[in-house]
Amino acid sequence: MGKAKGNLAIGQSGGPTVVINSSLSGVIQEAMVHDEIGEILGMYRGIKGLLQDQLIDLRQQSAKVIEGLRQTPSAALGTGRYRLTPENYGRILDILKKRDIRYIHYIGGNDSADTSLQLHKLAADAGYELHVIAVPKTVDNDLFGTDHCPGYPSAARFVATAMRDTGRDTEAMGPSSPVKILEIMGRNAGWLTAAAALARETEGDPPHLVYVPERNVSVDQLVEDVRRCYEEREYVVIAMSEGAQEAPGMTLGQEFAPKEVDAFGHRLKGGVSDYVAALLKDRLGLKVRLDRPNYLQRCFMLCASPVDLEEAYRVGREAVKEAVAGRLQGMVTLVRDPGPDYHCSTDTASLEGIANREKRLPAEFMNSAGNWPTEAFVNYARPLVGEPWPPQRYVRLAKHFV
Amino acid sequence: MGKAKGNLAIGQSGGPTVVINSSLSGVIQEAMVHDEIGEILGMYRGIKGLLQDQLIDLRQQSAKVIEGLRQTPSAALGTGRYRLTPENYGRILDILKKRDIRYIHYIGGNDSADTSLQLHKLAADAGYELHVIAVPKTVDNDLFGTDHCPGYPSAARFVATAMRDTGRDTEAMGPSSPVKILEIMGRNAGWLTAAAALARETEGDPPHLVYVPERNVSVDQLVEDVRRCYEEREYVVIAMSEGAQEAPGMTLGQEFAPKEVDAFGHRLKGGVSDYVAALLKDRLGLKVRLDRPNYLQRCFMLCASPVDLEEAYRVGREAVKEAVAGRLQGMVTLVRDPGPDYHCSTDTASLEGIANREKRLPAEFMNSAGNWPTEAFVNYARPLVGEPWPPQRYVRLAKHFV
Repeated sequence: MGKAKGNLAIGQSGGPTVVINSSLSGVIQEAMVHDEIGEILGMYRGIKGLLQDQLIDLRQQSAKVIEGLRQTPSAALGTGRYRLTPENYGRILDILKKRDIRYIHYIGGNDSADTSLQLHKLAADAGYELHVIAVPKTVDNDLFGTDHCPGYPSAARFVATAMRDTGRDTEAMGPSSPVKILEIMGRNAGWLTAAAALARETEGDPPHLVYVPERNVSVDQLVEDVRRCYEEREYVVIAMSEGAQEAPGMTLGQEFAPKEVDAFGHRLKGGVSDYVAALLKDRLGLKVRLDRPNYLQRCFMLCASPVDLEEAYRVGREAVKEAVAGRLQGMVTLVRDPGPDYHCSTDTASLEGIANREKRLPAEFMNSAGNWPTEAFVNYARPLVGEPWPPQRYVRLAKHFV
Repeated sequence: MGKAKGNLAIGQSGGPTVVINSSLSGVIQEAMVHDEIGEILGMYRGIKGLLQDQLIDLRQQSAKVIEGLRQTPSAALGTGRYRLTPENYGRILDILKKRDIRYIHYIGGNDSADTSLQLHKLAADAGYELHVIAVPKTVDNDLFGTDHCPGYPSAARFVATAMRDTGRDTEAMGPSSPVKILEIMGRNAGWLTAAAALARETEGDPPHLVYVPERNVSVDQLVEDVRRCYEEREYVVIAMSEGAQEAPGMTLGQEFAPKEVDAFGHRLKGGVSDYVAALLKDRLGLKVRLDRPNYLQRCFMLCASPVDLEEAYRVGREAVKEAVAGRLQGMVTLVRDPGPDYHCSTDTASLEGIANREKRLPAEFMNSAGNWPTEAFVNYARPLVGEPWPPQRYVRLAKHFV
């Protein structure tokens, strides 16, 4: 430990995923092989842990626990959504100096990249040598500079799995409960919602309609889409982003939300699915059922994508290597090789192009009607998500009526 | 086929499950080994398929498809919720005679047992020999006469899995989103909600509170329970039945429901979780997040319990054996051996004691406060549900602060 150049601090930020602990494990295991690194400190509950000097000694953990993180969902250090402000800079710098922290790895999305960038700048401005290499993570998949974001493939796998199964459920119910909406996370980005399309094995399988925030859908168009699908097969399954919009900046049904209040007089958030269910009942007389798994999308360990688990671990290790090699700021990125076989290598991008920006689903990943992902999207997402799970093909009875 | 005594009709009823097709597979495969049985006919979408003479020829299906049903969730014949009335009896009898149906197997819950009983009675009254052996199925687990119901163990496995993972997610979020409610199906019975307790691996793990319809909880008690849990560990995870009550016949927040209308002026169903979320925000100032996986609870194939898959198949086969052996009416039941090792055999009970009755969670399966399942419940449910899935134990970091 005598020749250590300084200590390392690592934090987890924003919403947990099933693989954010894999990245943590990767950082810790890689840090342990570098003599430049002294203490390995975990920020308790994100950047606030650094600000409040609440730091967990990660060298005190057993090797079994560090390895076990790779199969443990959620964020083992605790996470948070605190945003640094210039008022915090003095205090942060004091802690960095007091703890002799020279390496920082912050695992998170675009807000977290902003935090990393602020840390880099405040240290640079103070002439304090600090290596800040961010580790990407978000189920929303909306980070610039990387082919995809760890966390997304597994959440997408949950969505595809849930869609495949709830699609079969709705098919069996037939006319008595003919419309199902699976409401899907993703804030302003449709990456996770689009993944529902991976559930389709043969033509006509659910989902039948996919609505993402990047493509506005008018109320009339939505009703018409559902009517047409219902006439074709007597049931309709919809993948609906929680942020689906009828106009730029206006989610479906947003104008009705203020009319609804809860038992205590608070305005109800409403929610796109509740509105659409009421709309379809009103216009088409169809009963609509909702599945809103919400946080299960990001934490359901059973749906962890093997590709995701491995890559999340790898970007953690790479972040440490980059920092030790001397890079002062950046985020580890995943770079996909061209060609049909899936392979990703890692690289590092400047935080300047990543912080506070949202990479939304590109136009070529949705059809012209804005209600179905293209083959190009499926080719992008399939290798990340893997084959349907369970892998057995489900059967259907041939409709030989006597 | 010359010596066949008659034909067999099979139907699936009510909500699909991940194992109702296993029972279908069991019935078909068993029927194929009995020379007494001629045609094997599937009712399209439940009893309505019989009433409307929409019958699928199940001998025309490939052996691969019949076997594949054992790994296919949902109801392959289509299902329905139609209830027979005496006005249908004449038509039903005509179809039975026209198709020479002598064996009927109806897979479903207490409503379906009533349908089976009506079929038995109308045939008996007409002097028409008919063997009606029902096959149990319901995720609600509320059928009398059987230790448990196929479908329940797998849905319970989903609930326990979801609770384990969303519990970890909530723990990581800490004070920024400190309360999580997992809303769980089960109508008037708390069997499925209680299964959330199986998620707990060590003392203090989520869930912290479990509310079932069998035990009323006052608004004040609920607030006090949550306050106490929050003070202990800064986060609270609740397993909440969709039918949780504050008084007999009154679900939580039911009196407020009429105040809420949707965008079209329809009364909102409200929902226990929405109300409780608003309540806790109002009384304790705590932000509450909801997971409402709804139909995923009954269709998520990845959470199929191996015990459930096997038993569902077995009760299907047993139903045919009983019918061929001459029994005129009944439902196949699961009978658990006493003692610590799990083993169930099958038996048959009269439909009279099963139709239209609900077996609710017995008093000894909940603690005196009515907010946590007892060890007796865990001992009942654990062998059905199996070990936690994924089977690896999740790790936690030791909180060694520097």
